[in-house]
Amino acid sequence: MLGLRRGSFPKDELSKLVGSAELGEALSAGYLTQQGDQLSLSPSGRAKIRVVLAGGVYDVLHIGHLAALTEAKSHGDVLVVVVASDTTIEMLKGRKPIFPDEDRRKLVEGLKPVDKAILGYEDVGMGYEEVLTEVKPDLVAFGYDQENLERSVREIITMRKLKIEMVKLSKFENEKFLSSTSVRQRLSEALR
Amino acid sequence: MLGLRRGSFPKDELSKLVGSAELGEALSAGYLTQQGDQLSLSPSGRAKIRVVLAGGVYDVLHIGHLAALTEAKSHGDVLVVVVASDTTIEMLKGRKPIFPDEDRRKLVEGLKPVDKAILGYEDVGMGYEEVLTEVKPDLVAFGYDQENLERSVREIITMRKLKIEMVKLSKFENEKFLSSTSVRQRLSEALR
Repeated sequence: MLGLRRGSFPKDELSKLVGSAELGEALSAGYLTQQGDQLSLSPSGRAKIRVVLAGGVYDVLHIGHLAALTEAKSHGDVLVVVVASDTTIEMLKGRKPIFPDEDRRKLVEGLKPVDKAILGYEDVGMGYEEVLTEVKPDLVAFGYDQENLERSVREIITMRKLKIEMVKLSKFENEKFLSSTSVRQRLSEALR
Repeated sequence: MLGLRRGSFPKDELSKLVGSAELGEALSAGYLTQQGDQLSLSPSGRAKIRVVLAGGVYDVLHIGHLAALTEAKSHGDVLVVVVASDTTIEMLKGRKPIFPDEDRRKLVEGLKPVDKAILGYEDVGMGYEEVLTEVKPDLVAFGYDQENLERSVREIITMRKLKIEMVKLSKFENEKFLSSTSVRQRLSEALR
């Protein structure tokens, strides 16, 4: 998974982050390999890490998004979020988003449950076909209202015989109040 | 500072978080006191922690907010954010916010640089007088456009002879594009 799969890191920095005892355990279990003072994740180490993928537009952030991403993160160890590109949104919704994609990506990556946010490809279903290949998630999480996306991803997974679980996130209890659509209505009222 | 000042925590949980070596050092330096297996922060321990206070409305979050809070956090160890209550906003701006205060507070607390977000009191200047007493910050950070707030806080600090630094945060490079005012304009265009 992106930075997690590739690259190596200085042993002393990692040691400060996770403690030298934990690092020693991971080394002797073979989850990490050492070259000089650089540590890298081994294939068996990667296998222990459960990567969750979620995605969306995230134009005007609200606590429904935060709740969904927190729930998504609870299904694994690392949460990667695909943020729809401006082109994808214009194609899907026939309108420009309020915030440009790179700003939306940065803000989503600023949320506590999110380890990494990437921009989607300008392709059907936010380019999940490419994203699945790149991120190699163990699980893909869908919002309660992302039925079309869920269907396309299910097709990709079936066609390519990928070993990826799918999970549906709960509808936020306050969702009626908080869906992006009702946010747009309330924005429009507030701006009258 | 709120949870940091009061209360004690199980030693083994803290040990997992920061490593037993660090915990041992903090204990022998007198920054922590132990009762049974519970550890608490001592006054000299609290003195080592630099608490930063920032505040605002945070109605529609954008990366200008994230940049400002990240900069605020860089001035200390713990960042507490005061989120203006609905009543304060109505009083100041003569309009309701788009999102209710408890939602805004939760979302701000969901941002990586923020350790704790609290609601402001329904008082002049978001109730900074009460907040300063409660949070006991070492430093208060102000957005480049929070001149009125800065003035009232300076008065409180001078009158009550508090030892609190004040710092002005930089204007986000993209701020012209991203200020809440221009966001409102762009929202209004997008909703036409």
